[in-house]
Amino acid sequence: MYNLLKGKKGIIFGALNQHSIAWKTAQRAHEEGAEFVLTNAPAAMRMGELDVLAKKTGSQIIAADATSIDDLENLVEKSMEILGGKIDFVLHSIGMSVNVRKGKSYTDPNYDFTTKGWDVSAVSFHKLLNVLYKKEAMNPWGSIVALTYMAAQRSFPDYNDMADNKAYLESIARSFGYFFGRDHKVRVNTISQSPTPTTAGTGVKGFDGFITYSEKMSPLGNATALECADYTISMFSDLTKKVTLQNLFHDGGFSNMGVSDAVMERFE
Amino acid sequence: MYNLLKGKKGIIFGALNQHSIAWKTAQRAHEEGAEFVLTNAPAAMRMGELDVLAKKTGSQIIAADATSIDDLENLVEKSMEILGGKIDFVLHSIGMSVNVRKGKSYTDPNYDFTTKGWDVSAVSFHKLLNVLYKKEAMNPWGSIVALTYMAAQRSFPDYNDMADNKAYLESIARSFGYFFGRDHKVRVNTISQSPTPTTAGTGVKGFDGFITYSEKMSPLGNATALECADYTISMFSDLTKKVTLQNLFHDGGFSNMGVSDAVMERFE
Amino acid sequence: MYNLLKGKKGIIFGALNQHSIAWKTAQRAHEEGAEFVLTNAPAAMRMGELDVLAKKTGSQIIAADATSIDDLENLVEKSMEILGGKIDFVLHSIGMSVNVRKGKSYTDPNYDFTTKGWDVSAVSFHKLLNVLYKKEAMNPWGSIVALTYMAAQRSFPDYNDMADNKAYLESIARSFGYFFGRDHKVRVNTISQSPTPTTAGTGVKGFDGFITYSEKMSPLGNATALECADYTISMFSDLTKKVTLQNLFHDGGFSNMGVSDAVMERFE
Amino acid sequence: MYNLLKGKKGIIFGALNQHSIAWKTAQRAHEEGAEFVLTNAPAAMRMGELDVLAKKTGSQIIAADATSIDDLENLVEKSMEILGGKIDFVLHSIGMSVNVRKGKSYTDPNYDFTTKGWDVSAVSFHKLLNVLYKKEAMNPWGSIVALTYMAAQRSFPDYNDMADNKAYLESIARSFGYFFGRDHKVRVNTISQSPTPTTAGTGVKGFDGFITYSEKMSPLGNATALECADYTISMFSDLTKKVTLQNLFHDGGFSNMGVSDAVMERFE
Repeated sequence: MYNLLKGKKGIIFGALNQHSIAWKTAQRAHEEGAEFVLTNAPAAMRMGELDVLAKKTGSQIIAADATSIDDLENLVEKSMEILGGKIDFVLHSIGMSVNVRKGKSYTDPNYDFTTKGWDVSAVSFHKLLNVLYKKEAMNPWGSIVALTYMAAQRSFPDYNDMADNKAYLESIARSFGYFFGRDHKVRVNTISQSPTPTTAGTGVKGFDGFITYSEKMSPLGNATALECADYTISMFSDLTKKVTLQNLFHDGGFSNMGVSDAVMERFE
Repeated sequence: MYNLLKGKKGIIFGALNQHSIAWKTAQRAHEEGAEFVLTNAPAAMRMGELDVLAKKTGSQIIAADATSIDDLENLVEKSMEILGGKIDFVLHSIGMSVNVRKGKSYTDPNYDFTTKGWDVSAVSFHKLLNVLYKKEAMNPWGSIVALTYMAAQRSFPDYNDMADNKAYLESIARSFGYFFGRDHKVRVNTISQSPTPTTAGTGVKGFDGFITYSEKMSPLGNATALECADYTISMFSDLTKKVTLQNLFHDGGFSNMGVSDAVMERFE
Repeated sequence: MYNLLKGKKGIIFGALNQHSIAWKTAQRAHEEGAEFVLTNAPAAMRMGELDVLAKKTGSQIIAADATSIDDLENLVEKSMEILGGKIDFVLHSIGMSVNVRKGKSYTDPNYDFTTKGWDVSAVSFHKLLNVLYKKEAMNPWGSIVALTYMAAQRSFPDYNDMADNKAYLESIARSFGYFFGRDHKVRVNTISQSPTPTTAGTGVKGFDGFITYSEKMSPLGNATALECADYTISMFSDLTKKVTLQNLFHDGGFSNMGVSDAVMERFE
Repeated sequence: MYNLLKGKKGIIFGALNQHSIAWKTAQRAHEEGAEFVLTNAPAAMRMGELDVLAKKTGSQIIAADATSIDDLENLVEKSMEILGGKIDFVLHSIGMSVNVRKGKSYTDPNYDFTTKGWDVSAVSFHKLLNVLYKKEAMNPWGSIVALTYMAAQRSFPDYNDMADNKAYLESIARSFGYFFGRDHKVRVNTISQSPTPTTAGTGVKGFDGFITYSEKMSPLGNATALECADYTISMFSDLTKKVTLQNLFHDGGFSNMGVSDAVMERFE
């Protein structure tokens, strides 16, 4: 629509189906003139419809387990070959709590599940940054974004160990972002999105009630997946070159609300 | 360049000369297809070169003292007439400490100066929002941005009472932003910019040393006035519709640095 | 009970009646072995029962309009005379919104009321610090506390312009706290307390529903006035000598909650 | 000195030698009338002088690997037997980065080391809370504190993966603190301490220069280990019953400084 990403090359993780924020971001990046590689875990790819998206956006798919340095190295190398140069933008949209899936409570998890979820949801971002940094795969003024949720800052009872994983993820953005900025002039940020009815989101217990609560608390209402894609595009564009190490709330104002009139109605 | 603001109408406060962030924002908004009215205080207009900017961008100028409700009402009404409709974006770039100008220290100010500086730098934003809200002058999904500085969160000895003024300003964005979001679907945010060698900035004591410190602390270096204009454009665009009540750091990463290697060099 | 403030001398602002946090703090400070002067505005003293408190705690009362430098100078000088030396602790518990009292909405205030409320609620703290600093009235490792509310960080629709006043107040604590720490080894902090059914608190619209909401959101429930007094005592004691420039939430956990199960019940 | 912890029973992790914050906290808790069990990892106990501390404070020692649920269960059960009842306070002062010890950089760690450091430094806190919660081992209004560092919020290049571990640790305090508050009326907080020349602290690269920088940035100077012990005692006492889910900066003001005059001197 605006050619905001014309000539830019990217890698997009985590598009599962048309509800995914990553899916919408890929569509929007395509509309804005970008070329990119799509990637997901082999297991996720079997469940999803990534081929459809690849066809629509003229993209190639490279399967990668984001917890495997080998897979990430292969992904980054192949992506540079396919795209014919270094990378300008990367979206990390990966998260999964085994404890949530298996119905374990936050206060009494299976710690092997905890470790697995942390590795997939948080350490994968460090490994990705590590590979991109070591291979000098990013162009100067490139932009790397990971999706997160406000449970990293505040307590949401049903968000389980994903809260802690997201806190770790956001810390990686600050810690690694320093080195990536200093050495390669690349920015690293996280976008903290409203609860979104994606396949991942809807797995969380009590999700519908929570969506309602969040909607009523937010002066502009919850942000949709497409709106998140738009915001992510702005963070990939040249308009935001000096924004780095930030956690950016994209949530209709929820994060800075103490209480809204619409929520208070239920307490009067 | 991208037609990001095509068809959008705005009001831009605070362009004094070509070093001003507001000046650069006006230039960039013009390039992006917007139409807007320029405004500044009568006194500031005598010092500045607003005519030049108006000519370059095909804009009209309306003088307004931003501490006067009457002036603001006249400004908003005339702007809608000139632009032929409601407003889509507003930039508030106004700040001035009489105590700083008169060489008063933070610990022993003249409280009349304190009040005057607070009125000009902070309450003016409330009055502006008040007039826009009451007149229903903003289009749905419009965007209002005020410029601020991180002294609102942390102590910078030479920033004097502007620190407290900016804290008040940022609070207005959250407090009024709730009502503007809920009732008119308008977003209100502040952009917290790197120290910038504008006419206002360079008046602060020890500014050169501070620019150096800030540059060395920031992994991407200080953000320039033009870069701030770019970022502001992104906040006026339709890509950021659900971002509201936020204070957005545009500072090369400074705000989330504890210390950088370049700063540590001076301590080893 | 513990002799935590044995031999310490203080000034306590803002005790109106037995519901006041300042009243409870005076009682607790007395129990902990402190001597202090009580002060309030002449008008507030006519409404309240400060004599009773003075008698109970063996304290003298000095009336002072906290917006008047002259009154504050008199207060500080007389206090040092009465107490026989420099001051170790000060509590600022002063706040009042004329707009709230007069039923003006946040979006359309009377700006003279806004200025008056800001002067009383926020600038009074600056003036107090100014007088204490200039007169070198504080002992090293003294402690100054002002009470505040979380509306300074997040939007609470009914808190009106007190939100902005509290943001300004908290900024003063950081800005002035730097100079007071550097030059006199004195700490300056704010305590951000749960909504409390004091005479001031209950004036806010919809206060009862809000107390319920806050109670249900907080894992430990709302903090009472007496608990706040206890916490304030800890901040006056020698146990917290290196805590400064902080805004300390004393709220049963409210500030770091996204949502609680008890609140979610109303949305399912 | 004040009998602040008279009759209270606790568990203190992580006293290695007299420089340790945990060591000082044990001494101070003893002076304040508490009884407690000391614990450390078997390996740490061989390096340290825990026997000396146990003798001085009349405490028993129970070795425990804080990453082992079995060891923690044994510790908690034995502690209740020894102390003759439920626990009132717990100090978690455990942290270790294998990557730092082995000289690995943040940008290219050994991920097995990363996992081990995360397990020891962060997950150990979750396991401890889990065991205390499941066994209902805490008295109502008990207090649990973990020590942390501001690298969880901001980038400190040499702090390596401990930054991310501390972010995870602080998130656990919020996440688990909700359940512990709601169900058992127990508070859970972290104290974010100045850089401290303990055995652990001095292992970090460039530590001396960093101590100097931090000292010059902080209006009250760095907080010592003994001062941290004092502050921790206040958090264990009944004066702070409604403080929970908080990360409390104990750092002479560092965390809210933008820049100090003493730091600026090196840039002029």
